[in-house]
Amino acid sequence: MGAIKAARAFTGRPKIAKVEGAYHGLYDYAEVSQTAKPESWGKKDKPTSVPVAHGIPAKALSDVVVIPFNDIERARAILDANKDEIACVLLDLMPHRVGLRPAEADFVEFLREWTTKDDALLVLDKVITFRSTYGGAQGWYNIAPDLTAMGKMIGGGFPVGAIAGRKEVMEVMNPLADKVLFPHSGTFSANPVTMTAGLVSMIDFDEEAIDQVNALATRAIDGINEAIAETGIKACVTGGGSVFRVHLKEHPPHNYREAYTTPEENARLVVLLDHLFDEGFLMINTCAAVMATSLRNTEIDALVAALKGGFAKIK
Amino acid sequence: MGAIKAARAFTGRPKIAKVEGAYHGLYDYAEVSQTAKPESWGKKDKPTSVPVAHGIPAKALSDVVVIPFNDIERARAILDANKDEIACVLLDLMPHRVGLRPAEADFVEFLREWTTKDDALLVLDKVITFRSTYGGAQGWYNIAPDLTAMGKMIGGGFPVGAIAGRKEVMEVMNPLADKVLFPHSGTFSANPVTMTAGLVSMIDFDEEAIDQVNALATRAIDGINEAIAETGIKACVTGGGSVFRVHLKEHPPHNYREAYTTPEENARLVVLLDHLFDEGFLMINTCAAVMATSLRNTEIDALVAALKGGFAKIK
Repeated sequence: MGAIKAARAFTGRPKIAKVEGAYHGLYDYAEVSQTAKPESWGKKDKPTSVPVAHGIPAKALSDVVVIPFNDIERARAILDANKDEIACVLLDLMPHRVGLRPAEADFVEFLREWTTKDDALLVLDKVITFRSTYGGAQGWYNIAPDLTAMGKMIGGGFPVGAIAGRKEVMEVMNPLADKVLFPHSGTFSANPVTMTAGLVSMIDFDEEAIDQVNALATRAIDGINEAIAETGIKACVTGGGSVFRVHLKEHPPHNYREAYTTPEENARLVVLLDHLFDEGFLMINTCAAVMATSLRNTEIDALVAALKGGFAKIK
Repeated sequence: MGAIKAARAFTGRPKIAKVEGAYHGLYDYAEVSQTAKPESWGKKDKPTSVPVAHGIPAKALSDVVVIPFNDIERARAILDANKDEIACVLLDLMPHRVGLRPAEADFVEFLREWTTKDDALLVLDKVITFRSTYGGAQGWYNIAPDLTAMGKMIGGGFPVGAIAGRKEVMEVMNPLADKVLFPHSGTFSANPVTMTAGLVSMIDFDEEAIDQVNALATRAIDGINEAIAETGIKACVTGGGSVFRVHLKEHPPHNYREAYTTPEENARLVVLLDHLFDEGFLMINTCAAVMATSLRNTEIDALVAALKGGFAKIK
């Protein structure tokens, strides 16, 4: 919400663009399309702004422009049609709900070029993917965003959120400016315990720690791929850095519509998740996982073994 | 934001109504009119939806209905004109920015009746005023809200927010419902440290503790009134429970427009605040104060003495 409001304040424009299906929190504009279904999502050329919460103002929906992931031609046409009104393109470089695959490099570069050319901002949501490399997931690409939203791990276990960005853009929140374009303060701001715990976590989460958790994810992905091959199940695993997600689909999805789980897939997924639960692994309903520095190979191998057992059961 | 989204989900209506000038956080709809000025606030009969952040969508502004505080006739006419579209009336019973005076009982009762009659919800923002009595500021009135938003003190020093309300309304967030009208989850939800610290704080903040901090505020208010009389300055003090605010105005304000500080008043206020700072008291720019259980009469008397010195300086 803060990053979007900063982008609006900087550009004076009302609309945001976002990738279909991507999760960016509960803010009305950010959550649009996150739970779109085949019967509601509309044409590929113009995805519908599908609400999540019931009762969201129709006027808010009309201020959100939805683009398909990894589809430059369609995204360009949709963005161009709204170009004078778009404050920012909001992008998670590896969106969990869109399949948890790193965005294709040319798609990311296109969004960087389009926003620069049309005086909109590129806002990266790195709440999850900040952990991917020492410089965050943007280290995978040759771009720099205008604003970055962060959260989760940077608070060291405490509720936290942060916005970083170009000096000129951050200036909209400068409390000492003659005219503060986006006044930003509140009870949550600069909580001393959160700031201290976050600082210590960030000092500890150094290159070595990142290599360690990324190696755990690589080990898991390799093991899962082997388990898929050995059981002969139609499944795949996606991910990057220290996170991964198991799909009960033959091919890794390129976008939200491909990542969407049909009721039939979902029934099999429930069997898998229940099996994992019985084996001692409580997974999120997408069967995704995030590695922690406290984990060791033993836990990863046990998870892979449990997944293999679940694959065999479904098969 | 959560309470407003819950009200929209429950009623299926897009608009909210709020008191002119009241602060309810950074959510676009909630912050409207908070910083309205004489040149922008429009007629008393129809206060303008004045934006706070630059770039807020005009469509969002048009979904906010602004009513004057403590003015039943005008509020009724404004609400009636939007009655089929209002999801909730959002109300702080003693809004800081509106003058920090408890709302008049007949105004509160009118809003409770109007919302009930017109199938809208009454949402109380008790983020600050929860501390006023053991049951919160609503203990001053003969009403019950549909939803209550809380924060600050209930987290025991950690970032926190909570929504409480009628069972039927809270059902919109029930994750086990067949259709969840307002899906509500996130990294901030149920943080174990915040929940533990908040519980301990709430156990400690019993009737005795509330009486203690309320007595401190009463002592401060009495002392400030005496200092005003003795120095002969045009000033007054408002408040209730354990909070108070000093105004450099002869009469206590009834609404935001009366509470608004003119540039001339503001210049005198800066002199007062600078004097307080030199005396060791760092006050918010409205010269309001909130009592803590760690305070004793000594600190209150020192603050009153420092205020008296500041009054004399201005005079």
